[in-house]
Amino acid sequence: MIVVTTPDITPAQLDAVREHVEALGLRTHVSRGDRRTIVGCIGDDAAVAESGIAALPGVESVTPVLKPYKLPAREFAAGPTRVRLGAAADPVLVGGDALAVIAGPCSVEGPGMLRATAHAVRASGAVALRGGAFKPRTSPYAFQGMGREALRLLAEARAETGLPVVTEVMDTRLVELVAEHADVLQVGARNMQNFALLSEVGRTGRPVLLKRGPSATVAELLMAAEYVMAQGNGDVILCERGIRGWDPATRNTFDLAAVPVLKMETHLPVLVDPSHAGGRADLVPALSFAAVAAGADGLIVEVHPAPAEARSDGPQSLDLPAFDALMARLRPFAEAAGRTLAAPAWAA
Amino acid sequence: MIVVTTPDITPAQLDAVREHVEALGLRTHVSRGDRRTIVGCIGDDAAVAESGIAALPGVESVTPVLKPYKLPAREFAAGPTRVRLGAAADPVLVGGDALAVIAGPCSVEGPGMLRATAHAVRASGAVALRGGAFKPRTSPYAFQGMGREALRLLAEARAETGLPVVTEVMDTRLVELVAEHADVLQVGARNMQNFALLSEVGRTGRPVLLKRGPSATVAELLMAAEYVMAQGNGDVILCERGIRGWDPATRNTFDLAAVPVLKMETHLPVLVDPSHAGGRADLVPALSFAAVAAGADGLIVEVHPAPAEARSDGPQSLDLPAFDALMARLRPFAEAAGRTLAAPAWAA
Amino acid sequence: MIVVTTPDITPAQLDAVREHVEALGLRTHVSRGDRRTIVGCIGDDAAVAESGIAALPGVESVTPVLKPYKLPAREFAAGPTRVRLGAAADPVLVGGDALAVIAGPCSVEGPGMLRATAHAVRASGAVALRGGAFKPRTSPYAFQGMGREALRLLAEARAETGLPVVTEVMDTRLVELVAEHADVLQVGARNMQNFALLSEVGRTGRPVLLKRGPSATVAELLMAAEYVMAQGNGDVILCERGIRGWDPATRNTFDLAAVPVLKMETHLPVLVDPSHAGGRADLVPALSFAAVAAGADGLIVEVHPAPAEARSDGPQSLDLPAFDALMARLRPFAEAAGRTLAAPAWAA
Amino acid sequence: MIVVTTPDITPAQLDAVREHVEALGLRTHVSRGDRRTIVGCIGDDAAVAESGIAALPGVESVTPVLKPYKLPAREFAAGPTRVRLGAAADPVLVGGDALAVIAGPCSVEGPGMLRATAHAVRASGAVALRGGAFKPRTSPYAFQGMGREALRLLAEARAETGLPVVTEVMDTRLVELVAEHADVLQVGARNMQNFALLSEVGRTGRPVLLKRGPSATVAELLMAAEYVMAQGNGDVILCERGIRGWDPATRNTFDLAAVPVLKMETHLPVLVDPSHAGGRADLVPALSFAAVAAGADGLIVEVHPAPAEARSDGPQSLDLPAFDALMARLRPFAEAAGRTLAAPAWAA
Repeated sequence: MIVVTTPDITPAQLDAVREHVEALGLRTHVSRGDRRTIVGCIGDDAAVAESGIAALPGVESVTPVLKPYKLPAREFAAGPTRVRLGAAADPVLVGGDALAVIAGPCSVEGPGMLRATAHAVRASGAVALRGGAFKPRTSPYAFQGMGREALRLLAEARAETGLPVVTEVMDTRLVELVAEHADVLQVGARNMQNFALLSEVGRTGRPVLLKRGPSATVAELLMAAEYVMAQGNGDVILCERGIRGWDPATRNTFDLAAVPVLKMETHLPVLVDPSHAGGRADLVPALSFAAVAAGADGLIVEVHPAPAEARSDGPQSLDLPAFDALMARLRPFAEAAGRTLAAPAWAA
Repeated sequence: MIVVTTPDITPAQLDAVREHVEALGLRTHVSRGDRRTIVGCIGDDAAVAESGIAALPGVESVTPVLKPYKLPAREFAAGPTRVRLGAAADPVLVGGDALAVIAGPCSVEGPGMLRATAHAVRASGAVALRGGAFKPRTSPYAFQGMGREALRLLAEARAETGLPVVTEVMDTRLVELVAEHADVLQVGARNMQNFALLSEVGRTGRPVLLKRGPSATVAELLMAAEYVMAQGNGDVILCERGIRGWDPATRNTFDLAAVPVLKMETHLPVLVDPSHAGGRADLVPALSFAAVAAGADGLIVEVHPAPAEARSDGPQSLDLPAFDALMARLRPFAEAAGRTLAAPAWAA
Repeated sequence: MIVVTTPDITPAQLDAVREHVEALGLRTHVSRGDRRTIVGCIGDDAAVAESGIAALPGVESVTPVLKPYKLPAREFAAGPTRVRLGAAADPVLVGGDALAVIAGPCSVEGPGMLRATAHAVRASGAVALRGGAFKPRTSPYAFQGMGREALRLLAEARAETGLPVVTEVMDTRLVELVAEHADVLQVGARNMQNFALLSEVGRTGRPVLLKRGPSATVAELLMAAEYVMAQGNGDVILCERGIRGWDPATRNTFDLAAVPVLKMETHLPVLVDPSHAGGRADLVPALSFAAVAAGADGLIVEVHPAPAEARSDGPQSLDLPAFDALMARLRPFAEAAGRTLAAPAWAA
Repeated sequence: MIVVTTPDITPAQLDAVREHVEALGLRTHVSRGDRRTIVGCIGDDAAVAESGIAALPGVESVTPVLKPYKLPAREFAAGPTRVRLGAAADPVLVGGDALAVIAGPCSVEGPGMLRATAHAVRASGAVALRGGAFKPRTSPYAFQGMGREALRLLAEARAETGLPVVTEVMDTRLVELVAEHADVLQVGARNMQNFALLSEVGRTGRPVLLKRGPSATVAELLMAAEYVMAQGNGDVILCERGIRGWDPATRNTFDLAAVPVLKMETHLPVLVDPSHAGGRADLVPALSFAAVAAGADGLIVEVHPAPAEARSDGPQSLDLPAFDALMARLRPFAEAAGRTLAAPAWAA
């Protein structure tokens, strides 16, 4: 159930509305927009409609939310959520007019390659740096990431370039450590329903980049976001990265339609990972253009200075010139979609 | 195996190349481009490389084609195939610089709705008219289409508007009849591996619009095209229309990545059907923009004057103003992709 | 809607019930069981319940059928359908207590291999012979079957062994020809929604073996059966043969649960094709045992005297001793399931 | 690479073989069978074949293992693994001749229902008790399990009935706690690639029941087992529980063929969870019979005294009489498969 308030509601009236709802044994969530404020009710809300709430001063309407997800539901918010990355005075926003392109290597493999990539992707217009410190690998004998050392290198790269850092966390015991170093905590596809992890990253207050699981429906992705948000952390960025499919032509099946479906269902920003979606560097441009055309709020792209030598995901990584070319070709699609693309650093 | 010839090969030399290959028990297929001519070899071609063909005058190189498909393979053609729709002096081309948008009702339901739709979609910039005469329906008790009467109405609509007509044929016994009335024979998703039908439409010489089956890989789609082309009919247009998926958010799973994969694998033009891909009218715009951004050569869109009253596919059909709006919004994406979009009729 | 009649209904009363329903513009279908007769109503049956039919003499109850399928629905029949194969005085029944195992080569490749296979599978306990005359092949250049000659060889094998013959038909124009030679017309997975073909085989009156399409739901399979039955042909045998899946460990994904679901939903017999379901000869025994344990009415198994030399489906074909061993090992599972297995011919 | 030793190898010779391999920078794993001992080599083993190892005394042969998984691979072990549940003098074995049926409620909901279920399933022949303490739920607002209190109740039920206890753990921080109370640690489908968790349960030395993820291939399941085994814990039980499918007739698609594929690929025992595989209580018997017929080593079944009132998974839970009937009907299938089924407690 959501309570939509009138434009002229006073703070005291708003408090009265919340207290009314909470007296019924429910939790409330307040979303303030430019023109209206919405009070969301979480819990067994059948009694709200009959409670006389519609007669309270400042209440415009009371509407049920029939979806299984509440906090991520579009109706629960007064407007689209813009997630702020990093602590800069002029921060990067995900979910606003400007497309957010996050780029970097699958894994941090050492200081040289990370610095080279960070400077290059910034020059091409990326607004944040991705890089894996702890890597989920199908085999226990494969390279598992540089761990803490990678976190340190990412922080250094941020200090040099100003780019906020996105990195994955896989273990509840490491959330605190990763949150100390990273600007955005990524929950990977394999952990989309690792509910203990979702709650733990929710508690940090750091923005969370939540990737869709390979067999998760859109509704299940939104329920996973609900786990993070239920801890009071509304800064969730969703990411479509391909689902399990049966055509060997691509590594995964890029579910493009999930982008507009998500934009209708939720107020949270939606990114696309064209690298994992197709699993082939040669498909990254077409998938990126399509994502932006379909309404995505940005991309997260794997870039490596020498993909052939990458310790993971080489076949789907762009090299530095290819990423630069991608950004240049992306611009007219961004404009066709009514979005802007950050100017490359060299153009400043 | 393909034989690439030199730019200055003479007709007599080309004949000699073909005879050389055919003497080995193979069939040949000649594709003439602006700058080079390619002789494709079909059959058990292991012997070609060892046959001394590379020494013939006019032969530049001999290259194996490792794909299971031959005639649709990109290497088999000297350049992209442009399929001509209709018999007009200035025909519509599918596969050229201009995007081809085909629109019309799922089923022809009567003369009034068809004429209204045909005029409207032409005015909005569609270059051909779709309309079902014989409908594949899951239930034998559902409306099966108006049959021959619908073919007559389609021909009338063509006469009035000049739009070439695309309609589905499902039965080998009706191919001749449908080919008399239609400009393009559509083979539907359920019949993608109806090999008797593929061969029969191949024999007509009419352009064929071949839709991908819901569980067909890209390679299987190309093998189905091979059946049509093996009858000497090279005018095949491929169409991605969504594959079987497990997320109830959409009717099918739109496999966007199939578009760039197909553009790399084949010289045939590739359309997208955003109506079936998502199964929801509200998704058609986003899916259309994405298709064009990813490199599709056009769209085939379901349009109905009153979708709520449609006898089939109402929930995924656009009404006339929505189609007009779609075409207007499509233009900047077409331009971003380096394509043109036919000017609407009223702009002429 | 179904009308259940009382045990003592007279023929005249039954006629009156049918006339009452037909006067409402509906078609009727009468199913006679040992203890009761059921009159199924086909068409827009909303008016039946209000029509006063419950007061007619001999009517016990009137019940709506909420499923999209009617004639195949369990409620539409007074008991399980037993399909009779062949014209023998003591015919093979599919759907009765005895399991029906149909076996033979993927393709008829010549007289010798067919006769050898037919005699061997009969000796091992098979009750019918399968063999492809017209083969659906992904490539137009692959072996397409021996066609009419194969039909003649199958008829010869039947004359020698007494085994009824099952063979596939893919083209409406060939239905009459195939029906002249075969005892059972198989509609293959790729043609499960070739509605023209379904209607045409329905018109022959021959039993039809209908294979599930690789992306068809159980409900869609039953709707396909409805197409055959709507032509007055109730002798439909359903067959689960694996659906499109994404694990390369098997060619298809064997949907074992479809067997009990079908047995609950329909009165038609249900076979399993363990050869296509797994695509591997080494999996055929386990899949066969599981099928029988889950309630299947029989199996259709690919058997070849020399699988390594088979012109199609070699990797999933059993050789003759392997089939004999399968039958021996199958017997205790049949008994555990409360079924019998035909004694091998040599035991007679 | 595996080194197969001769039957008469001495302990000193075996040590020499291991030292030889380890000197090449590899780890070794020794599996002792009745007739032979196998030394598995883990790591970059290309050098082993060329190292002269074949000439060492006691070495019979050296064979490469081409699969991506090593420790779970059939070739790595001298025979099938039998996992011992609980600390009893006469312990339950999973993977031996006797089928192991594990049963109990989805969630522990209180002492009464748990005791009633434990006594009843033991009486019907179950050899271990399942029960969820920490539940993975799609919604954060759904019942999350009774947690520590449930662990205590499970331990009480074990004390009363003698049944070893299987329960799920989802958070690395809780592994130690759960391992104190449970005999078997279950890793659920959603966590199959939660690699931190896999390693942590591997370190406990407790048997691990590893469920297949809904979009995991068989090979990925075996790689997940490798994570557990790489910690020195060889007591892994695999479990097929249905994969993501697109037919709404069942909750998941039961991949029956995975059972025989796994039995060929690995020496680890394989269970089936017929409750989740179909998601319907009415399908549990058929799926159970099929699983046993296909070679499964046992079942894990959801049983609840009052399924209609269950706080989770009610629609797929059997009530106590239905479970008892299942066990009775299972016996002939077990025997047909050459297995035994524990006698029910009342028969003792």
